[in-house]
Amino acid sequence: MPASYAYLGPEGTFTEVALRTLPEAATRELVPYVSVQSALDAVRSGEAEAAFVPIENSVEGGITTTLDELVSGRPLMIYREVLLSITFALLVRPGTRLSDIKTVTAHPAAQPQVRNWLKAHLPDAAWESAASNADGARLVQEGRYDAAFAGEFAAGPYGLEVLESDIHDAENAQTRFVLVGRPARPAAPTGADKTSVVIWQRDDHPGGLRDLLGEFATRGINLMLLQSRPTGAGIGHYCFCVDAEGHISDRRVAEALMGLKRICLKVRYLGSYPRAETTPKDVGALRPGTSDEEFVAAADWVARCQDGRF
Amino acid sequence: MPASYAYLGPEGTFTEVALRTLPEAATRELVPYVSVQSALDAVRSGEAEAAFVPIENSVEGGITTTLDELVSGRPLMIYREVLLSITFALLVRPGTRLSDIKTVTAHPAAQPQVRNWLKAHLPDAAWESAASNADGARLVQEGRYDAAFAGEFAAGPYGLEVLESDIHDAENAQTRFVLVGRPARPAAPTGADKTSVVIWQRDDHPGGLRDLLGEFATRGINLMLLQSRPTGAGIGHYCFCVDAEGHISDRRVAEALMGLKRICLKVRYLGSYPRAETTPKDVGALRPGTSDEEFVAAADWVARCQDGRF
Amino acid sequence: MPASYAYLGPEGTFTEVALRTLPEAATRELVPYVSVQSALDAVRSGEAEAAFVPIENSVEGGITTTLDELVSGRPLMIYREVLLSITFALLVRPGTRLSDIKTVTAHPAAQPQVRNWLKAHLPDAAWESAASNADGARLVQEGRYDAAFAGEFAAGPYGLEVLESDIHDAENAQTRFVLVGRPARPAAPTGADKTSVVIWQRDDHPGGLRDLLGEFATRGINLMLLQSRPTGAGIGHYCFCVDAEGHISDRRVAEALMGLKRICLKVRYLGSYPRAETTPKDVGALRPGTSDEEFVAAADWVARCQDGRF
Amino acid sequence: MPASYAYLGPEGTFTEVALRTLPEAATRELVPYVSVQSALDAVRSGEAEAAFVPIENSVEGGITTTLDELVSGRPLMIYREVLLSITFALLVRPGTRLSDIKTVTAHPAAQPQVRNWLKAHLPDAAWESAASNADGARLVQEGRYDAAFAGEFAAGPYGLEVLESDIHDAENAQTRFVLVGRPARPAAPTGADKTSVVIWQRDDHPGGLRDLLGEFATRGINLMLLQSRPTGAGIGHYCFCVDAEGHISDRRVAEALMGLKRICLKVRYLGSYPRAETTPKDVGALRPGTSDEEFVAAADWVARCQDGRF
Repeated sequence: MPASYAYLGPEGTFTEVALRTLPEAATRELVPYVSVQSALDAVRSGEAEAAFVPIENSVEGGITTTLDELVSGRPLMIYREVLLSITFALLVRPGTRLSDIKTVTAHPAAQPQVRNWLKAHLPDAAWESAASNADGARLVQEGRYDAAFAGEFAAGPYGLEVLESDIHDAENAQTRFVLVGRPARPAAPTGADKTSVVIWQRDDHPGGLRDLLGEFATRGINLMLLQSRPTGAGIGHYCFCVDAEGHISDRRVAEALMGLKRICLKVRYLGSYPRAETTPKDVGALRPGTSDEEFVAAADWVARCQDGRF
Repeated sequence: MPASYAYLGPEGTFTEVALRTLPEAATRELVPYVSVQSALDAVRSGEAEAAFVPIENSVEGGITTTLDELVSGRPLMIYREVLLSITFALLVRPGTRLSDIKTVTAHPAAQPQVRNWLKAHLPDAAWESAASNADGARLVQEGRYDAAFAGEFAAGPYGLEVLESDIHDAENAQTRFVLVGRPARPAAPTGADKTSVVIWQRDDHPGGLRDLLGEFATRGINLMLLQSRPTGAGIGHYCFCVDAEGHISDRRVAEALMGLKRICLKVRYLGSYPRAETTPKDVGALRPGTSDEEFVAAADWVARCQDGRF
Repeated sequence: MPASYAYLGPEGTFTEVALRTLPEAATRELVPYVSVQSALDAVRSGEAEAAFVPIENSVEGGITTTLDELVSGRPLMIYREVLLSITFALLVRPGTRLSDIKTVTAHPAAQPQVRNWLKAHLPDAAWESAASNADGARLVQEGRYDAAFAGEFAAGPYGLEVLESDIHDAENAQTRFVLVGRPARPAAPTGADKTSVVIWQRDDHPGGLRDLLGEFATRGINLMLLQSRPTGAGIGHYCFCVDAEGHISDRRVAEALMGLKRICLKVRYLGSYPRAETTPKDVGALRPGTSDEEFVAAADWVARCQDGRF
Repeated sequence: MPASYAYLGPEGTFTEVALRTLPEAATRELVPYVSVQSALDAVRSGEAEAAFVPIENSVEGGITTTLDELVSGRPLMIYREVLLSITFALLVRPGTRLSDIKTVTAHPAAQPQVRNWLKAHLPDAAWESAASNADGARLVQEGRYDAAFAGEFAAGPYGLEVLESDIHDAENAQTRFVLVGRPARPAAPTGADKTSVVIWQRDDHPGGLRDLLGEFATRGINLMLLQSRPTGAGIGHYCFCVDAEGHISDRRVAEALMGLKRICLKVRYLGSYPRAETTPKDVGALRPGTSDEEFVAAADWVARCQDGRF
């Protein structure tokens, strides 16, 4: 029996499509779960080797359910990320024409992405929410609604036709997914990595957060995500989920994490893993003085000074 | 006909209760709307004088729907805030006993607050989601479910009884609401105010966000909320909703906003208004050198230097 | 009787040559004084309109006598600066040949500039110190020594011949002089100005000085001199003489000075005046967000926000 | 033959008195040199084991001759420092009364310390400069002048009497001396140490110096001296002599030095040694997060994260 990967189900959604882009997914049993929480609990309990869940998208920002699960409870670690462009197809039963459509359905998260298209092409169609985009397709198959917005890949399994494809209001609509497992040694650095941590401030005072971010800034480390999440201590109390460029084995990142550890109330390490982004900002040159070579040379110099050899 | 306040409906929810704590609500017509968006659009169109909507709570953090509406579209301004402690009552038809309850209902947002109570007292009851807590009470009245979690104030309107009150898993569960209107002169400073802005970074580089926060920190201004929201330019592109202590008529706040305006791509001012918090951190002393008196004295001194009189 | 300029004498030194490069010197009586202190006291007492004294050179750095006089006592202001390249000539009585020279003289400050030349060309000559380079020339005229190092311009007045000119060990040897007067309106900005201040820290703590410099740095202002001087309160107690790029009428400079005024124990303004430097670093572009236009636009925006018009 | 300590002579000056406070001086031959440069050259050449020279005083600040020697040439290291309070005695030939004194002498550096006393008690006495205070005493012994200002300890060797003692215009007049040797392992940390370095900026830009000082500030390290010295590259080009609290074997100091090494053009380590100051600021508590224990704990935590054990 192969090890299994839990994922946010049901089958036939963007999450499954994203998961199948990972080579290692081919050798695992892929098991859908009804919620992010249940998928991550399956990892914590040992029922699954890892879980694959959405963590950020271009409309909602950080997915709070996923972040909150990573922030609290038994520690978990991120090992991989996948970026998927999200465009919708309009799926209908074979033979349905655009003019036949009176009702459309999809998961509520799809709505901001198709709103303008609907207004332009089906201004009078009634919108009905579905539990998932795949479920919407099923309801169309069953004749409950006339059309569903879903990934093009959902047409086949439900015997539907693609009436229109590549529907997306926002350019660059993307969702980022992560593969989460129990704590273990992080993946080896690739040169284009990302490190995720959660930080809790020791106390709240003017400049407190500025100083925390300074631990990254003074070492030339770019931030890719900063998302505040409630700590549970009452309104106005937040911790911060941070994604930073670089790998924990990079000297500049290790020193920044040490700095945070010293000045924060608490730091939770969520892993270092290859970055999926391919936008120009990935390939930025290091700021002078922040390369591993320069860190090593500086440490050597201090050691020589401590020894009186210079 | 009195001017009207739009609020996130339906009637009989925590939002309405919070709104009624505002003295000015007594002289307005209070009109429920089905969504935050529709309530704010009513303000934008002039249909309502102001809208009252939730903006932050102790479980979810910033309410993204509200923040996103304030971040984009025609500018709006916050004039007041209200903090409401959220505790639930278990409402039943008269005569129902705890042992009779097989089904319970409430808005999904209530679930994290009552989960432990349910596990302890009604471990076998089935949970059904309702569109709002008030709607859950109505469904109990109609006999569809046996019990509803809602505010105690919802018992009367729906002819229900309070079987249990003060149910809350998390201590300090609170929701913050804001009264939003069209741009106008902000309320006069009270000495315990808050200023809300949205900031967009000019470009993304190591230290960029640290420097923006530095505009507040170097002037001794504490931050009360920092919530990233997607800009719509694709995944990983964020603007930041910031609540800072102080009023735009405080010199330190005005100078910090000017600093942001100069170094940011864009800044949207969302208003200055009395703080609702009553926790100790409100009454903190100013950092030396940041009082209005010191700002005025420094400006006078520079003017005298420019004039050669010193 | 024309107004007089005091200068550090005697006549026939580099100071007088530098002073004569100022057009306004042509219309004043130029009066040599025996010390920087006496020249500045002549200004304080009203005996002289202004004083011209050295303030920095490439070998010694800041001239502490001058800085200490500006730091304490009745306030004075700098109105002009002059940079003079310092090269020496070897002056002899007519007919003297290099091989005749057994003794040489000059002010001790000249020694580091001519040491290598002496070693190469007159290895056996004895060095005798003079009270000034002009005085050395006089002593050669009187036959006391065989040769003097002085400015080429000193040959004529003392009836000497230039045996060798352009002698300088260090490339780029320069002295900076300033014209100092009683406080009045600073000269109009030229676009390439410098502002001098003295700052006293409120207390001494980690980061204290960093924060003071931050008032310049966050507004994109380059520093051209930072010289610590004892405050007189005991060893280890220092104030700082700072030269910063820009004019007090530049918004970024005015705001930085206000910031210093608010957080420092004391700030003494020493003037804003045209920069004499012509090295590339003068012509640097402003950092985005620090031009007068951007300051004005930001102030206008805050005023509109305070007024509810945006 | 015992190892020798070179010191700035002649015998019978404050420097010798300060040197003799060091226990190790009792077992060395103490050799006076005519200049700081010659004393330090004796160390460089191996002629002396160490040199004892003044480095800072409460009137002049950093002694530039000493700093410049440490900044350039073959590297040297500071091993000890001594603070000496400077008060003068008025020395006369036996039998001389105050009313007999027509001429007084001393080294010019003594003048600011005795000026007020002279004005009050000997307003008509003529001042003559001596090459050193000890030399002044000798000239009084020889009958050349009537009285000399010098350390009380100089009376005996020159057969003079102390007519007045404890003369000092400035309260807290002190001089700091250092014992300088060839590079070797620094003295063991005592818990109240000081570390001296020289730093050269990589390039000059707004915020450059602020960032260098930030390497100390962000690690809670107080600065005790910041003295700019010309680099020799022309006017306006400076390096900085810095004294910081702490020992290079303190983790916070080591990490700060590494940071400087990475971002500076050049850093010269001048040693870590026990602080002589006994003022309150010495015993300040460490800033939270900067103790060795916290540094070690943070490094351990990062190591565990890199290993997947947490």
